Amino acid sequence: MQLNRARLPVRRPRIGVVGGGQLARMLYQAALDLDLEIGFHIRPGDEGVAGWSPHVNIGTFETPSLLGFASGYDAITFEHELVPAQILIELEERGVTIRPSATTMATTADKIQQRALFKQVGATAVPFTILNRDNTPTLPAIAKAATGGYDGRGVVLLETESALGQLDSATTWMIESVLPIEAELAVVTVTSLQGKTICYPAVRTRQAGGICVEVHWPTGLPREIDQRAESTAVSIAAAANVVGVLAVEFFLVAGELLVNEVAPRVHNSGHLTIEAARTSQFENHLRAVAGMPLGSTEMLMPASMLNLIGEVHPQGPPANGARIHLYGKTPRAGRKIGHLTAIAPDLSQARAMAAEAAARLGVARDGGSRDG
Amino acid sequence: MQLNRARLPVRRPRIGVVGGGQLARMLYQAALDLDLEIGFHIRPGDEGVAGWSPHVNIGTFETPSLLGFASGYDAITFEHELVPAQILIELEERGVTIRPSATTMATTADKIQQRALFKQVGATAVPFTILNRDNTPTLPAIAKAATGGYDGRGVVLLETESALGQLDSATTWMIESVLPIEAELAVVTVTSLQGKTICYPAVRTRQAGGICVEVHWPTGLPREIDQRAESTAVSIAAAANVVGVLAVEFFLVAGELLVNEVAPRVHNSGHLTIEAARTSQFENHLRAVAGMPLGSTEMLMPASMLNLIGEVHPQGPPANGARIHLYGKTPRAGRKIGHLTAIAPDLSQARAMAAEAAARLGVARDGGSRDG
Repeated sequence: MQLNRARLPVRRPRIGVVGGGQLARMLYQAALDLDLEIGFHIRPGDEGVAGWSPHVNIGTFETPSLLGFASGYDAITFEHELVPAQILIELEERGVTIRPSATTMATTADKIQQRALFKQVGATAVPFTILNRDNTPTLPAIAKAATGGYDGRGVVLLETESALGQLDSATTWMIESVLPIEAELAVVTVTSLQGKTICYPAVRTRQAGGICVEVHWPTGLPREIDQRAESTAVSIAAAANVVGVLAVEFFLVAGELLVNEVAPRVHNSGHLTIEAARTSQFENHLRAVAGMPLGSTEMLMPASMLNLIGEVHPQGPPANGARIHLYGKTPRAGRKIGHLTAIAPDLSQARAMAAEAAARLGVARDGGSRDG
Repeated sequence: MQLNRARLPVRRPRIGVVGGGQLARMLYQAALDLDLEIGFHIRPGDEGVAGWSPHVNIGTFETPSLLGFASGYDAITFEHELVPAQILIELEERGVTIRPSATTMATTADKIQQRALFKQVGATAVPFTILNRDNTPTLPAIAKAATGGYDGRGVVLLETESALGQLDSATTWMIESVLPIEAELAVVTVTSLQGKTICYPAVRTRQAGGICVEVHWPTGLPREIDQRAESTAVSIAAAANVVGVLAVEFFLVAGELLVNEVAPRVHNSGHLTIEAARTSQFENHLRAVAGMPLGSTEMLMPASMLNLIGEVHPQGPPANGARIHLYGKTPRAGRKIGHLTAIAPDLSQARAMAAEAAARLGVARDGGSRDG
């Protein structure tokens, strides 16, 4: 067979990731399979990454430090939304390639701007008002910080007026009603560098104590609801001009899908794609950021993912058919130290396998030892 | 729920791997999921590992250097059989924990000793004689180096008497007839530290130019043949007193299963377990070496794995549903730079997907550009 010499290797794409937590770790595992050059930028005290990657830059989230990091890479991407939007804009002005862009990161880092985006594509967002010290909201209500929330942080259930007084006055708070949520869904979208958006099938998420404890597919909901979530998510991703993964979270309330929030990065609701989809969200994010064609988002089998939270002892007991992913974190109450995923020909089997594996690892039902 | 305080974390197992190639790289990916401490010992000039692990020791395969490496780990394991047996015995005498043991490594590093082992468990080995310069073997025949062979190296097809004269006289050569091989099979076994041996289902391997080009499961052979291969492989692993993965290769000749050789390490014939089995061979090898319980070897779906050999251009085209695993090597003719695996509800679909994905990556049929 004649070789096509035009296909001889080009230089490997070089991707810089801001962050060094579990999402960065799983991006790293995928980057090894794709043979990308990849490095990580963390702040002093950020745990872990120096233990597993030889390419770690320790600095700040300010322009000079990030410029230094970025100079070694073709493009920069993120495992979190902690770099201030103004810094990202400055970096872009100084010629750094940021994927997703500074504009997308700025929009999605602010839940109020997110909801304007949802409206723009005709989607219904969770209704909210902005907390105004002159008007007391009807209680009970939920206060959400417009920026900086993560894994239940930045979300406060307001039951009494005194709770209102305890909200940090430097933060912009969104006030939402306590909704009769029938189900929570999420859709992980991926947008190529060329702007083509695809998505994984909608998954169902289950929370306890404000933290996601389980994600499963299929959702068990009418197909029409899944499809509505998927098409809404794709519209939002396209409108956000994102590159790579953007996860969209929904509440199902009285048969209506309300968009809750988005995250412009790989996301807990997509972890089950490692085992259950043809291409993982981590690989697809890197493919997008590196300008490569995206991989198939087809699901192979029903799956249940459980987060491992708290004082579990993960290295002893067998995984019992589920696949375990540990994050290199010291277990402590309320801390997400890993996850596991079971896949099986039907969902009830996958859920039973995942639950049994988690029980063997010492994980308490519904959220581990958060309150234990 | 009450937490069982006896389950609080113990120190993470620390595993040292001798080697830094693709098998070490895939062990590393699995070690991240298990949160093991892992480091690699390579010789100067060994490529790659320093690019992906922060824990690399560069030294020699002599006792002082390996002692220094081993001092940082609870147990040492191997991605190859290149450390001389005498050195491994010395290390054990100096208190290093080697898994598999020096005795097992010595037996399996020598194909003549391997075949004595096969006989010991009542299995039929590929018949051979030891080359003796006084007797000319009947030609054509195959000469195999008793030690040091790998990926077709150390195997010579002898067609004329002049070829005999070109064999390195410092090597012990085994002479085998050219057999009418109907199929080649392999069984990947895993033995826990406590000595319990389990195995993955038998797979079929396809070679071209002395290199494995495809591995698929199921084999397409009568179930009785698979079962015979599996039980023979388990007997051999048990007799070899191995810890971790031991792969056993078979030829099917005139309906009879002949054992060809074994390797006491993770093996190319087990790569498809990453996608197709509940637990990968890499995770199970580490579980065994770390003294952890083994994970399930159940297969989830039919699978086809193709090696990526030669001047392929892996970062451009989409994987088309197959999962790609690149090894961080610069492509060149005849070099294995990665593999891909497709899984699907039936084997013909999986094989078609894998073949299409490989073609898109520029891989030539049956062995890439080895002779191109």
